[in-house]
Amino acid sequence: MKHRVTFFPGNVTVDVDEGETVLDAAVAAGVHIDASCGGAGTCGKCRVLVEGPHRASGALEGHVLACQAFPEGELSVFVPAGSETRAGKIHSSYASVAPEVREPLAESIHVDMEAPSLGDNLADLERLRCALGRPSVGIALPSLRSLPSVLRSSGWSTNATIARMGEAEEIIEVRADDARDVGAAIDIGTTTVALELVDLSTGKVLAQASDYNRQMVAGEDVLARIAYAEEKGPERLQELIVGTINRLVERLCSVGGDLTSDGCYQADHIKALSIGANPAMTLLLLGLDPRHLRYEPYIPVVHEPPVVRAAELGLRAHPRAPVYCIPGRAAYVGGDVTADVLLSGMHLKDELSLLIDVGTNGEVVLGNSEWMVTCSTSAGPAFEGGEVSCGMRAMNGAIDSVTISNGELRISTIGSQEPIGICGSGLIDLVAQMFQGGWIDRKGRILSDGSERFRNDEGAVSVVIHSGETDILIDEDDIANILRTKAAIYAGCSVLLNSVDLTFGDVDRVFIAGGFGSHIDVANAQLIGLLPDLPRERFEFIGNGSLGGARMTLLSADARRAARSIFDSMTYLDLSSSSTFFDQYSSALFLPHTDLDQFPSVRARLKR
Amino acid sequence: MKHRVTFFPGNVTVDVDEGETVLDAAVAAGVHIDASCGGAGTCGKCRVLVEGPHRASGALEGHVLACQAFPEGELSVFVPAGSETRAGKIHSSYASVAPEVREPLAESIHVDMEAPSLGDNLADLERLRCALGRPSVGIALPSLRSLPSVLRSSGWSTNATIARMGEAEEIIEVRADDARDVGAAIDIGTTTVALELVDLSTGKVLAQASDYNRQMVAGEDVLARIAYAEEKGPERLQELIVGTINRLVERLCSVGGDLTSDGCYQADHIKALSIGANPAMTLLLLGLDPRHLRYEPYIPVVHEPPVVRAAELGLRAHPRAPVYCIPGRAAYVGGDVTADVLLSGMHLKDELSLLIDVGTNGEVVLGNSEWMVTCSTSAGPAFEGGEVSCGMRAMNGAIDSVTISNGELRISTIGSQEPIGICGSGLIDLVAQMFQGGWIDRKGRILSDGSERFRNDEGAVSVVIHSGETDILIDEDDIANILRTKAAIYAGCSVLLNSVDLTFGDVDRVFIAGGFGSHIDVANAQLIGLLPDLPRERFEFIGNGSLGGARMTLLSADARRAARSIFDSMTYLDLSSSSTFFDQYSSALFLPHTDLDQFPSVRARLKR
Repeated sequence: MKHRVTFFPGNVTVDVDEGETVLDAAVAAGVHIDASCGGAGTCGKCRVLVEGPHRASGALEGHVLACQAFPEGELSVFVPAGSETRAGKIHSSYASVAPEVREPLAESIHVDMEAPSLGDNLADLERLRCALGRPSVGIALPSLRSLPSVLRSSGWSTNATIARMGEAEEIIEVRADDARDVGAAIDIGTTTVALELVDLSTGKVLAQASDYNRQMVAGEDVLARIAYAEEKGPERLQELIVGTINRLVERLCSVGGDLTSDGCYQADHIKALSIGANPAMTLLLLGLDPRHLRYEPYIPVVHEPPVVRAAELGLRAHPRAPVYCIPGRAAYVGGDVTADVLLSGMHLKDELSLLIDVGTNGEVVLGNSEWMVTCSTSAGPAFEGGEVSCGMRAMNGAIDSVTISNGELRISTIGSQEPIGICGSGLIDLVAQMFQGGWIDRKGRILSDGSERFRNDEGAVSVVIHSGETDILIDEDDIANILRTKAAIYAGCSVLLNSVDLTFGDVDRVFIAGGFGSHIDVANAQLIGLLPDLPRERFEFIGNGSLGGARMTLLSADARRAARSIFDSMTYLDLSSSSTFFDQYSSALFLPHTDLDQFPSVRARLKR
Repeated sequence: MKHRVTFFPGNVTVDVDEGETVLDAAVAAGVHIDASCGGAGTCGKCRVLVEGPHRASGALEGHVLACQAFPEGELSVFVPAGSETRAGKIHSSYASVAPEVREPLAESIHVDMEAPSLGDNLADLERLRCALGRPSVGIALPSLRSLPSVLRSSGWSTNATIARMGEAEEIIEVRADDARDVGAAIDIGTTTVALELVDLSTGKVLAQASDYNRQMVAGEDVLARIAYAEEKGPERLQELIVGTINRLVERLCSVGGDLTSDGCYQADHIKALSIGANPAMTLLLLGLDPRHLRYEPYIPVVHEPPVVRAAELGLRAHPRAPVYCIPGRAAYVGGDVTADVLLSGMHLKDELSLLIDVGTNGEVVLGNSEWMVTCSTSAGPAFEGGEVSCGMRAMNGAIDSVTISNGELRISTIGSQEPIGICGSGLIDLVAQMFQGGWIDRKGRILSDGSERFRNDEGAVSVVIHSGETDILIDEDDIANILRTKAAIYAGCSVLLNSVDLTFGDVDRVFIAGGFGSHIDVANAQLIGLLPDLPRERFEFIGNGSLGGARMTLLSADARRAARSIFDSMTYLDLSSSSTFFDQYSSALFLPHTDLDQFPSVRARLKR
């Protein structure tokens, strides 16, 4: 027996079998409900309001837990705003990189031809090829079908859009009028998807938007997605990410002039797409099976995916638009990391650079124009709001910065709103300041002075960060998770340096990439031992490198060639089989580190 | 109001509007009914038997003319065997050409790979590319999707099928078991379509079949097809030719072992297709608009079509199988002529060759390894059974050879059956023998001696070729049509020779191509002035050059490169704008020619 469930807002309807939960229905409908515990009924985050016949346990304040509620007839479900995730803002990309437009993925070329005659009886396609100066350029069959009428209706003065499919070029559109050609640069994060519409001739960003990755209905992190794909096949996850991207395209295109600075674009004006994403996200976009990423020896289907057509993936764009995915080196060092390197320019510099992409995995790249080594640290989602009771993503109401001075704790929140949790940069600040203020010790244990600031609930000590409608607390488990995350990243950096017999002191420049990277307070990150103890001027924030790299590769064949040479030349170190990683990790679980000699300036600050 | 019409044999049903004829219904249903007069009600060939409400004029012996019968309700139509066309046999291709297999259009390669490990963590695709020795070979998305499981289930010992898409190579299939890869060489004639299944590794022809081109429902000749496409769009004609090919594929593949010498093939074992066809047939296969072939300056959409996928055209084969069309030079000198040249090898020889493809258009090529000129003569369909009252195609019951000696006319028929008409080779023999025997004069006028052999019907004189159930007669109009056809071909040859200041005497070799070419009696063809008066040993028959060239290009990249260089280097002479063609043509309307000096051996024979 089937029950029909309709979700609001959105008015999305789905039929589910008897015995399936409202959360199951939400997954099937592609509606995101936050459910950190994965439907175990313990986190309480999946509260929804239901109208209609159902049975439920764990009802709370008129709401039910979606994971514990079973439809027993036609049901309406209202997903509260606090549960429906909202997209964070796109962090501005590395400002210093001016986009160079040279052989973009797709390009419109205007040509004037002589009309044919008995003495000049070249066929239509060969005439166009000749005028384009490309005697053997390919052409898509639909374009060839429209070619005779377009050439004649345009009076032999025609626009041809050339797409670059890997090494080959192909005419994907011919038009009598001027083509409006834009490209899409897309960062597919496990959590957030960001899309920029880019003018393919000037490189100008016309509009941008971001949204949560709808795949979240199948799990919050990469491993959950892979597990879902392994169990049910990659098709549903492919649909969900394509749906996410298509929704962004619709938002930017169909609405019109107000969102684009240069008038209204339609989806089929998008003539090329470039994608920066981690390996699992890249594979799932292409409908490829990611399961072997999970198992030793952790082999992706492909490092450098073939350029495919938008229509092959169901993407809303010109059907023949090339979809280029930035190549990636390993199962957990993907095109997003190649894009970071590309945007940082470290592959062009003689000086030694260390690049840290602070995300769930914490990828690290070390090297210069001659060599590069890389690893992925499985840092954990602490800085993205996961595995920390008060953690949340960087959105309105998140505490993003904390200072403690003279025993006083001060916070600021995104949007200056009433605080509802702490995002990554806030957590770094908080732990650093609590450590400096003597509220916690080097092992992250809370040093209660018995004041109201500290709360003791049957032996579990926590610190009150904010008292209000909802109290915001942090406890020792939370701090331990944060320490594990920072230790993994620092240890990854150490192992890479050791592998080439160098030390942090040899590093000329540290690039920080990743969504929240640009908001990190370097001094606090050094206080907790997340970032190495180097002078502030050696640090550079590049923001969303994946999106920036996608834009670069969208616009330039040089950038695509550089991406290939970057991923190709990187040596990958698998930390799970590294003999030294665990030692380095264990040493880094302290604040800032077991070996204080590595943090001389922190030692100096602590002595003050 | 619609009426349902069902055709037998075949049980094909179609709904037609009030006011449409049974012939219209047959066209819509794709059922071929011979209707030479195009539905004018004059040729009487479209007789069918009908059951059900209808109104008809011109009913004859219980039959109605399909073009004059209008359904007035549900109608059954029985198409007699004599009207439903039957396929002629494929003429054996140029025997001396042993197929060389070198970089065929598609090729299976077996590779053994090392299983990946932590120390050898290349991705699946890159591992396969490396084993194939093709670091940047493309791959079709469906193949990439199946790659991880195929590699692992095969124990890293896998077959990959590589397709050659123009300059680029692409993996279109990966299999754990041995691939059975065959190719299809296809000649698309305006009238007949021939298909060979070819083993792509040995070049061996496994099976062959031919059938009438179903486009005949839209007209007998190329111009009629183009006119149909111009009026109704090319889509229906594209469907019809694809349907013809798919039917041939089904006949050769699905039935199994008895039709192939090496077991049973399925359609998706066809991994590549190569097509030889005239320009209109090539364009219509690709769904391209052929209308501009009809109008000055006679410009085709394309000389060298891009390699497309079988699935893009709806062809029954592996969906990603490349479909290669042999490139052609001009609106009426197509890939079939390039194929003739390729098969003849004249492009490799220092000696001067003249190649004549005796079909509706009578294409001629003159040249050697250094240069080539070509033209198309619009000869007319006389040698294919058209425009001659007793004419028919080379099939059972056709008179294919005629001798007259001592006033006695002797005939032989294909299949030694009761004669029902005369095919091309028979017509050449007949006119030549009547001329030699003094039954007709040099202008083709019948010289009646008043005997029973000659019939005079109100001043219209005709010769009785055969008396029987159906009398077979030839009259002066028929002979005039034959003279026009032979004159056009001979004049085309003359104009080409003139254009390079050479004469027939300079020609070292004459290649005769075309379906019925191999059956021509050279001496008789010289007697009527169709072929030049050169020693017999200079003539060579290459048979179906289009099919032979399709097989060569299917099997060899060298042949495809040669095809490109042939079409590219041919100089095309447009006879409609030639100042000398009409003079040459007029001079050639006599038997054998106005200028008897050009036919010294014929003069000698006539004097005997």
